[in-house]
Amino acid sequence: MDFPKAPKIGIIGAGAIGGFYGARLAQSGCDVHFLMRRDYAIVREKGLEIRQREGGDFQLSPVQVYRQSADIGICDLVIVALKTTANAQMIDLVRPLVGGSTSILTLQNGMGNVETLAEAFGASRVLGGLCFVCINRVAPGVIENYLPGSIVIGEAEGGARPRTESVAALFQQAGIDCRLTDSLAEALWKKLCWNVPFNGLAIAGGGITTDRILGSPSLRQLARGLMEEIQDAASANGIEIPDTFLEKQFTVTEKMDAYRPSSLIDYQEQRPVEVESIWGVALRVGQASGVPMTRLETLYALLVHLTRETA
Amino acid sequence: MDFPKAPKIGIIGAGAIGGFYGARLAQSGCDVHFLMRRDYAIVREKGLEIRQREGGDFQLSPVQVYRQSADIGICDLVIVALKTTANAQMIDLVRPLVGGSTSILTLQNGMGNVETLAEAFGASRVLGGLCFVCINRVAPGVIENYLPGSIVIGEAEGGARPRTESVAALFQQAGIDCRLTDSLAEALWKKLCWNVPFNGLAIAGGGITTDRILGSPSLRQLARGLMEEIQDAASANGIEIPDTFLEKQFTVTEKMDAYRPSSLIDYQEQRPVEVESIWGVALRVGQASGVPMTRLETLYALLVHLTRETA
Repeated sequence: MDFPKAPKIGIIGAGAIGGFYGARLAQSGCDVHFLMRRDYAIVREKGLEIRQREGGDFQLSPVQVYRQSADIGICDLVIVALKTTANAQMIDLVRPLVGGSTSILTLQNGMGNVETLAEAFGASRVLGGLCFVCINRVAPGVIENYLPGSIVIGEAEGGARPRTESVAALFQQAGIDCRLTDSLAEALWKKLCWNVPFNGLAIAGGGITTDRILGSPSLRQLARGLMEEIQDAASANGIEIPDTFLEKQFTVTEKMDAYRPSSLIDYQEQRPVEVESIWGVALRVGQASGVPMTRLETLYALLVHLTRETA
Repeated sequence: MDFPKAPKIGIIGAGAIGGFYGARLAQSGCDVHFLMRRDYAIVREKGLEIRQREGGDFQLSPVQVYRQSADIGICDLVIVALKTTANAQMIDLVRPLVGGSTSILTLQNGMGNVETLAEAFGASRVLGGLCFVCINRVAPGVIENYLPGSIVIGEAEGGARPRTESVAALFQQAGIDCRLTDSLAEALWKKLCWNVPFNGLAIAGGGITTDRILGSPSLRQLARGLMEEIQDAASANGIEIPDTFLEKQFTVTEKMDAYRPSSLIDYQEQRPVEVESIWGVALRVGQASGVPMTRLETLYALLVHLTRETA
């Protein structure tokens, strides 16, 4: 599939991530269409306000905003940024935007999103991206970016190809640090090495920041044990994560001080926590590969209960 | 060792369990001496008040109460009912009561107490007992028994012998349902099959009663997984716990309705939780026998953190 130079882009799930990247792409001249529900009225009236610690604040106005996917129509690129707790609606929301040559990039958390999209629309259309950023919706229509961060994108199947580079170029033209990976699966497993222990123990540890996980010998050891289970599950799926990578997660986290992982913020603000895509899918993929993952199983069971998601 | 008909009994750790059984033994005519710290003054002045749902309330007064073990002197039987979180002081508190023919019965929670006493004083003196009761200290010098319950006692080494029967007879003469076991270790492992999951998940599940553990499919499954690890560890130590016993724990717990396990009460009332004797020792014994016990390891790490005990 050729990827057009000036693609029509649809954003499904315009919360913090979708709103931010969509606004940056629009600001750089892309033709961006946002599906919004909660913030539709205010964004239609006042536009999207983007506050940035680096790069300056800006207002995107007017915004091409829609209440229903069908009104957006076929796009060249669909960016899926739905919270994974809403994944039951994902396919229906994406379908009206998908034509013969549409590419779909999911920027969602955790595992299983690429697979869900690939099953519905064919793997050849699907890309996945990992966002290493800190972005919050601080008020209706107002998004704040605390950390410029970066995105890593890759193909659902196989290594990077011209289409991958074209999509990355869109982000790069918008001033976003976007890198390619030849193994999306490896990037996803590696991100779980941080998310599974630190997001999970922040909640199960009673609502604690990362410094308190690192400061508790028992939780620190448990975090390492959880990482090793992810490492084993990745290995059973053909992806080798070196021990040095696990150790590096602790070094990196030391520098974050009293960091409140995003799942803890969701939990404490009584928003849905992405339990399935972060812990549930990893557990099921690992178990299906013959890796018992009993630490993860235990943490997952507690998180399902604590966040009141149905198992 | 012959066991005297009218033994001198010393109670070390006169909280709810020690105070209750000591008072019942004294009421039945035994010569009982209590070591007390927190409630010494009030018990010396007013005696011990025992409230019982069955069997009637009574007041034991005067009480032979002491601030220091040395003042009690050598006993025929020492009953240890210290909270295991105070076990660092146990040997020093018990030693002044131990003479050539002293027997020592620990009624403490969890595992490792018999071994600690056996190491200090010789296994042949030591008995262990499990209390299946619900007793609380509701005010200084006031103890309430909600459930008559029962005690099971056994020898640290080998099966029941005449001395075991003599000790059991003391309780039976005081109207307490006291049975003998030929395998104290089996009784202790079996009790852990309930205590490890239900006391543990009540805390780690965010402060919940047993009905909510049973009502959560994820926690119920986790409780079963934890029991299976105990079963495996017991098996590695020569004790076979049948699957039917595990299943029975759920049936029994269904009948308890919204029961608040004792460790949860300790936790919520900000008292020390017996993390080491219930979860820590079981984990270490299992791991030393080559049973990984990773569910227990995970729960233990969380409990150590949540209860702020040092690992």
